[in-house]
Amino acid sequence: MARETDLSGYLIAPDPGAARLTRRVIGHDEGGAEVTASVVEERPLTIWLNGQEIVTAMTIGDYPEHLALGFLANQRMLAPDETVTAIDFDEEVEAVVVRTDRPTNHEDKLARRTRTSGCAVGTTFGDMMEGLEGLTLPALAVRTSDLYALSHTINRTPSLYLEAGAIHGTVLCQGARPLVYMEDVGRHNAVDKVAGWMRATGTTGADKTLYTTGRLTSEMVIKCALMGIPALASRSGFTAWGVEIAQSVGLTLIGRLKGRRFTCLSGDDRLVRDADLSAVADEPKGAGRKGAA
Amino acid sequence: MARETDLSGYLIAPDPGAARLTRRVIGHDEGGAEVTASVVEERPLTIWLNGQEIVTAMTIGDYPEHLALGFLANQRMLAPDETVTAIDFDEEVEAVVVRTDRPTNHEDKLARRTRTSGCAVGTTFGDMMEGLEGLTLPALAVRTSDLYALSHTINRTPSLYLEAGAIHGTVLCQGARPLVYMEDVGRHNAVDKVAGWMRATGTTGADKTLYTTGRLTSEMVIKCALMGIPALASRSGFTAWGVEIAQSVGLTLIGRLKGRRFTCLSGDDRLVRDADLSAVADEPKGAGRKGAA
Repeated sequence: MARETDLSGYLIAPDPGAARLTRRVIGHDEGGAEVTASVVEERPLTIWLNGQEIVTAMTIGDYPEHLALGFLANQRMLAPDETVTAIDFDEEVEAVVVRTDRPTNHEDKLARRTRTSGCAVGTTFGDMMEGLEGLTLPALAVRTSDLYALSHTINRTPSLYLEAGAIHGTVLCQGARPLVYMEDVGRHNAVDKVAGWMRATGTTGADKTLYTTGRLTSEMVIKCALMGIPALASRSGFTAWGVEIAQSVGLTLIGRLKGRRFTCLSGDDRLVRDADLSAVADEPKGAGRKGAA
Repeated sequence: MARETDLSGYLIAPDPGAARLTRRVIGHDEGGAEVTASVVEERPLTIWLNGQEIVTAMTIGDYPEHLALGFLANQRMLAPDETVTAIDFDEEVEAVVVRTDRPTNHEDKLARRTRTSGCAVGTTFGDMMEGLEGLTLPALAVRTSDLYALSHTINRTPSLYLEAGAIHGTVLCQGARPLVYMEDVGRHNAVDKVAGWMRATGTTGADKTLYTTGRLTSEMVIKCALMGIPALASRSGFTAWGVEIAQSVGLTLIGRLKGRRFTCLSGDDRLVRDADLSAVADEPKGAGRKGAA
């Protein structure tokens, strides 16, 4: 089924042509011929909250203000009612300072380190489950026609992934429309940039779906729930704890979404199966767009 | 080219049938039919060094002793000449304690947090580049025939990836032989378990190649270099900083290794192109085994 891909609905789309985000490196292929590879950049960005150094993130470097804001919000270091008075990014010293009108001190939280199950030495600070107690997400109906449309559009959106690979994408969506598509070398950064954008613009998660190229681990599920987004979809698979948390907070969890196939392991009763499956193009097993590994 | 896959060379191979590592979860497919999905477990494991709590890792839970030892070694919290007197794993409290004959204190290191570019909130402690200054890896010749043989064998080895997906693999190899194949929800855990096995068995990295399903980020390159392994290969892509570090320490870096194709962005002069390319099965673009995203 050839469907035209409408990219005009994006508020933020990837900018794969931005010179700062990739570098061309000379190498050799299997036959010994010289090749030029486009590889993504990976830069340090130190995040400060008022006078306290919180963390140094390795990032492609776009949207440092959103990354800092989203990181602090997802780590519960910025309360929902906290007033952010300024966000100052200094490119030269590779640092961003978030300022609030009240003093903050997170030494206690910074002392508790949990290495999450992503693809790097993963750490969250404080209690991973903080903020989830008693949380129940709004019971949003999720249409399968929207899921297929999102998957179709996102996979055809020009991106750093298509340009250079080795990157993760996270997309904030509403119905069939992808709104904000962030990419980063770390999936946690991509989702934190989305969270920062939501906080900066005062956007609610209640009527949104989050799409990620990555796995549905406990960390992704927790971030999505803390962002108040009731549905999370991915081409990739699940972990047992991710499923358990999704079920406990009422998050609709759709994985292995490829072509017309998917698996729903939480919230199937909120799925509205309105798509005509025979009209959805299937994807040969193992083919197609791949998440960065 | 049909080649028989010889799995007898492994010292440690994945055990996808182990009951503790996966869980069967009831869900629904796109048509609404009930399906049973096999999903990997993700458990906390708190690592202690003597009397100091270092970190809580999210892991599938196999080889906790190797994970603890390798994590501490790769974080430079265990000096190469440090004598480990005991490693005690307590399954009930989900903790492992590594004991040394000299007292240790890493409060200073624990206070410096760097979020690496993996797929989770990534953090290393202290200076990421510590231990790399002046390091030059041995100039190991890497045969392309060995790379193709490794790729062939590893992709056909029964694994949790093939059973449940959403997992990363790292394989310590010697010539054409894969020796130790570790998997984990976090790629950092898989490589740390390999490092722990090497330390526990006194195995040198000098004549080895490391294969990973994940991307060749700065973190992977640094870990490989600190393990003294002069060659790193992956199906996946590169980051610019990973390439830069590989070049500076003399690490041979091969990425996008699929079928007969690959890209070498560091150490091409150490590659021995002895493979008959016409005899290596090619892989259609975008098909085949995928790294966990």
